[in-house]
Amino acid sequence: MSGKRDILITEVALRDGSHAINHQFTVEQVVSVARALDEANVPFIEVSHGDGLAGSSLQYGLSRTNEMELIEAAVSVCKQATVGVLLLPGIGTIKDLNAAVKLGVGMARIATHVTEADISAQHIARSKELGLFTVGFLMMSHMAPPEKLVEQAKLMESYGADAVYVVDSAGALLPHEVAERIRALKQSIGVEIGFHAHNNLSLAMANTLAAIQEGATRIDGSVRCLGAGAGNTQTEVLVAVLERMGIETGIDLYKMMDLAEEIVAPILQVPQEITRDSLVLGYAGVYSSFRLHAERAAKKFGIDSRDILIELGKRKAVGGQEDMIIDVAAEILKQRSAAGLR
Amino acid sequence: MSGKRDILITEVALRDGSHAINHQFTVEQVVSVARALDEANVPFIEVSHGDGLAGSSLQYGLSRTNEMELIEAAVSVCKQATVGVLLLPGIGTIKDLNAAVKLGVGMARIATHVTEADISAQHIARSKELGLFTVGFLMMSHMAPPEKLVEQAKLMESYGADAVYVVDSAGALLPHEVAERIRALKQSIGVEIGFHAHNNLSLAMANTLAAIQEGATRIDGSVRCLGAGAGNTQTEVLVAVLERMGIETGIDLYKMMDLAEEIVAPILQVPQEITRDSLVLGYAGVYSSFRLHAERAAKKFGIDSRDILIELGKRKAVGGQEDMIIDVAAEILKQRSAAGLR
Repeated sequence: MSGKRDILITEVALRDGSHAINHQFTVEQVVSVARALDEANVPFIEVSHGDGLAGSSLQYGLSRTNEMELIEAAVSVCKQATVGVLLLPGIGTIKDLNAAVKLGVGMARIATHVTEADISAQHIARSKELGLFTVGFLMMSHMAPPEKLVEQAKLMESYGADAVYVVDSAGALLPHEVAERIRALKQSIGVEIGFHAHNNLSLAMANTLAAIQEGATRIDGSVRCLGAGAGNTQTEVLVAVLERMGIETGIDLYKMMDLAEEIVAPILQVPQEITRDSLVLGYAGVYSSFRLHAERAAKKFGIDSRDILIELGKRKAVGGQEDMIIDVAAEILKQRSAAGLR
Repeated sequence: MSGKRDILITEVALRDGSHAINHQFTVEQVVSVARALDEANVPFIEVSHGDGLAGSSLQYGLSRTNEMELIEAAVSVCKQATVGVLLLPGIGTIKDLNAAVKLGVGMARIATHVTEADISAQHIARSKELGLFTVGFLMMSHMAPPEKLVEQAKLMESYGADAVYVVDSAGALLPHEVAERIRALKQSIGVEIGFHAHNNLSLAMANTLAAIQEGATRIDGSVRCLGAGAGNTQTEVLVAVLERMGIETGIDLYKMMDLAEEIVAPILQVPQEITRDSLVLGYAGVYSSFRLHAERAAKKFGIDSRDILIELGKRKAVGGQEDMIIDVAAEILKQRSAAGLR
């Protein structure tokens, strides 16, 4: 295997993929996936609850296995790969990070909403003190224009981040929107730039290629698309496409294909297709947590939940603003009545 | 519904999708899908065996239902949509086309290998005589450089085709390769240009957007990705993406989403994921019919079938050249032995 890597891939199936299987990973599954990823020469493997360290809760979904056990298991079988964790300040704490580091983790990604980088200062600083490769992870990046994204990325850089990611959490960005965001960061920050896609609009690969073209050097993938919604950029397919383009990932394509088919596919309870639900989330550009609330409101007001989600997307509603859903539903009904549509 | 259509979508789930369900469509299924497509204001609906008229055979797979019955059923429920058929000269005949026209078909797509447009002359001429909207359909377009594609498209135009399609049968094209092909056609022919993608490299949407950007005005989609290999550009997702881009298809997004989720998904026996098999076909750029032959040869020679398929792709092997597979396998083994790798 060539040691050369033009693009550094972080495999997120053991973190974002946790959403796809309701956080039911077992130690045995994590061991077999992490070992195969390591043997395929994947450089970074993220292991955490889907919502990051300490995400296991009634609110975000209870994990079947304590994530510290899963992290320890992954570290134990990795010979070359760096195991990383995701941490959302407000959900996970510095204490969780300290515990993960003791287990041998070498990378931490500190994630905030795209306009809230300021809450990552302490966590990024502590991650650097611990000697970790430290990533600032700007979620829901479609909700901020490039200028705002630049401002927030600069904050994370100032706190000490080694790289900043544009994260398309809702799978809502179009390729030209990804390109303009990565381009703006490239012109404004000195650290590495990464990109994390979701496939809700079938654009994960297109957006990933747009990001690479504009200078992103770190890319997230999930083997067999194991991630929230319609999943992420499918890692084994990305490796194949980049090989065809002459871009080296250092990853063994055949081993990744075999891992996807023989180890990961059997873990999936439901295949990673683009369903109506994930398509609506990508089209509206909203949090997946809004879906159930919108469906309840839709039933109550006799309207289509999609109209509610699309309106929430226009208003740039964020997590915690679930109360807005009832207001939006009531307004849609009122407008319809006024227009004589009902 | 606005009558404006910037892009004309042809839905191929009832033709290319036939591959995905081993040609097992029933009249009831075709009626329910075609009716819903018509109600969603899809302008063109293709109905045929996956390999076109008269494709039902031991070689290409036997259809459960006579395709003329399926075509008749689709026509009977379409109020605005034009029902079309696919015809591969050599498989289907003018006689089959005549029969389809009697059932009310309004479009014929005459398909040849990308270098064999000359065999479509009579069929295109006859289709025009019959008053059909007539499309030249250049399959395996990744196997010819843009200049060759232009030459072949010009032939189809000279025979009377109203539009010529670039068809990425193996799902092997990269976005810049699609762009250069569409651009070359746009500069050289006067009729409409279309594009047909497969998602084997997760690039169906990226390639479709590249085609539209370069001037393609006719695009194929398959609802819920129901097509050969990893399927085509997912129609309901395409409609959503184009809406987000301000490009009008005239198609009702919600109705398409509901059709995908409630009618088409239950028809699928196996979900349309990007599996190892479809990824290999896209990566190698070969016919799906080579796969089983390659697996047999691989077993016999103790080598990896993927190495055979990739070598066949490099040699631009075409359908009918299955004999080449054993030669390639033997050569791979010989090279390995010479290099002391076995």
